Amino acid sequence: MPDRPKAIADAVGAALERTGFVLATGGLGPTRDDLTKHVVAELLGKRLHVDEALLTALEARFRRHGWGPMPAVNRTQAEVPEGATVLPNPRGSAPGLWIEDQGRVVILLPGVPSEMRGLLVEEVLPRIVARQDAGVRVVRSRTLRTTGVSESALAERVGPLEDALAPLSLAYLPSLDGVDLRLTAWTLPPEEADRRLAEAGDRLRRELGDHYYGEEDAPLAAAVLALLRARGLRLAVAESCTGGLVEARLTAVPGASDVFTGGLVAYADTVKREQLGVPSEVLETHGAVSEESARAMAAGAARVFGAGCAVAVTGIAGPGGGTPDKPVGTVWIAALVDGSTTALKRTFPGSREDIRRRSAQAALDLLRRRLIGAR
Amino acid sequence: MPDRPKAIADAVGAALERTGFVLATGGLGPTRDDLTKHVVAELLGKRLHVDEALLTALEARFRRHGWGPMPAVNRTQAEVPEGATVLPNPRGSAPGLWIEDQGRVVILLPGVPSEMRGLLVEEVLPRIVARQDAGVRVVRSRTLRTTGVSESALAERVGPLEDALAPLSLAYLPSLDGVDLRLTAWTLPPEEADRRLAEAGDRLRRELGDHYYGEEDAPLAAAVLALLRARGLRLAVAESCTGGLVEARLTAVPGASDVFTGGLVAYADTVKREQLGVPSEVLETHGAVSEESARAMAAGAARVFGAGCAVAVTGIAGPGGGTPDKPVGTVWIAALVDGSTTALKRTFPGSREDIRRRSAQAALDLLRRRLIGAR
Repeated sequence: MPDRPKAIADAVGAALERTGFVLATGGLGPTRDDLTKHVVAELLGKRLHVDEALLTALEARFRRHGWGPMPAVNRTQAEVPEGATVLPNPRGSAPGLWIEDQGRVVILLPGVPSEMRGLLVEEVLPRIVARQDAGVRVVRSRTLRTTGVSESALAERVGPLEDALAPLSLAYLPSLDGVDLRLTAWTLPPEEADRRLAEAGDRLRRELGDHYYGEEDAPLAAAVLALLRARGLRLAVAESCTGGLVEARLTAVPGASDVFTGGLVAYADTVKREQLGVPSEVLETHGAVSEESARAMAAGAARVFGAGCAVAVTGIAGPGGGTPDKPVGTVWIAALVDGSTTALKRTFPGSREDIRRRSAQAALDLLRRRLIGAR
Repeated sequence: MPDRPKAIADAVGAALERTGFVLATGGLGPTRDDLTKHVVAELLGKRLHVDEALLTALEARFRRHGWGPMPAVNRTQAEVPEGATVLPNPRGSAPGLWIEDQGRVVILLPGVPSEMRGLLVEEVLPRIVARQDAGVRVVRSRTLRTTGVSESALAERVGPLEDALAPLSLAYLPSLDGVDLRLTAWTLPPEEADRRLAEAGDRLRRELGDHYYGEEDAPLAAAVLALLRARGLRLAVAESCTGGLVEARLTAVPGASDVFTGGLVAYADTVKREQLGVPSEVLETHGAVSEESARAMAAGAARVFGAGCAVAVTGIAGPGGGTPDKPVGTVWIAALVDGSTTALKRTFPGSREDIRRRSAQAALDLLRRRLIGAR
């Protein structure tokens, strides 16, 4: 939508007319294109006034971050429509605003994605839930995560169960990382919903077997780290085509440092040879993208970082570099656990980004399956 | 929206009534919760028939990826409402569908984000543009990217220019990575729009100085790699708190391998000491998160990987590990270029993910500024 007063007023006005409840994001910053608050205040016939507490907090924010005195333009961010509730935003300078007018609600949130998400979860959703009457229907769900298995293979495995899941519904949610299965209770009282979700989820989980790795939005890397931690193992990583993605996923999990010691991104063949000890003969005879190379990289990483466990990835992410024998998408991964190494070849479709992402996930999954003794 | 026929039919029907043009995503897969195609066909009174070309392509896809014979459930993915245009989807098994009915349009796209985006860009948008009359208004824009500077500081720098930019509008688009400035021509004929965007963009770019690093959606890592390539330099990386993110960003750029040789994720202090040669005294006296440690990590990476240029990051991403002296968010970065190292301390707000992301961006930006001689 253009940053124009009339376009914003028309859109908010029409949505408010239709639903009585509007959430708008963006346009709360200090610059001249930040018009939303002013336009909405005018639309609802409410004056703006400077909120002194907000102004003080804004000035403190500038001091705390060593940004010097607050520029004058930021003062507008302390302006609030009369009667509005300020939703504090610890992540940025623009707070959210909850404005009620004759039973209608307009919520304004900053457009920076991380700030918007934080305010939505911490301030907006709890207020919406609190507005509901006690008897209102609440939708509850449970998500089981799988990877390394296709949506249709899952459907063949789980399909016979689907009728028995009613009244819960089952959704298949495929992504590059795998397929999530979401059970939803749409109409049940909360206690019954929770009980049925627990029972059906456990039943489903047994059916999923080794393909299951976690619930809700738990990342695969967290499951791998937990398995390593339980066995007191330390992990080293060697990456070529994924170029740091496997390590970035592992270290995204808080507390990764007690399991993950370090890793190498061996992008050039010289690094594979000199840092990881991949033999020149392997690189010359089989190439950097080969079973032998992946195995030697895993062994090298375990040795360099003094770890009992290692994972390695080498492949062709494209768009260039493919050959008839080894087309773009060819990836070898290897996992070393308990002194023995398992290597796998995969041929992934998609863009460079897709191939890298699928490769990182496949590497972590191979390690996970080795750790649970699944292959 | 629940995967229920009535909910889908009501939503699509109401949106079609209101706008005459509906784009729906998801529900085209092979499983029982995939209802959208059937519901929309019924809503529009169109029969489904099996498209033989599509069926053949689907079967070939299963063979090509070595998935064995196609499961029977996938056959439904070859069904097409009569008169619909099939939008080929090279990324997955469900094609998009463009369905016209009495001047109204319903477009169905698969829900997997990468497939949806690909079809939108390659098939849907070109068809929408082609439907427009020649005289129709096309909105054009140009985006200039900045990083390492706050939105308000940019506004003070660029503000005086804003009136002179009319009739172009200027939007400030802040994110964790920096602030993009987008110039938009809403109403001009195409040639005039292009000319004005070029002129105003160049003017703006001069005003932005060293904060500017690229246009449209070009990543900062691509700008850094281009600067290194132009000078024939090779880059090594040492990461602690970012845990592979800096390297993942660099290697996301096609062709990174002619500049980036390799890097180390030195998560444990032992790795910093043994692999990067950070002296024990530095770790004991100043700690792993210190100027001295960042400098030694950069020097170590350059030496280990035989590179003329290196960047290092060490910090406290949280949620644990902060102290009064070094709170969560404290990050030291160092860039080694032409034999001299520049180090910087930053204190970043936000979550673990935010801090890691901001740190990776700041590290690449410090390197960029060193390479253009800006500090």
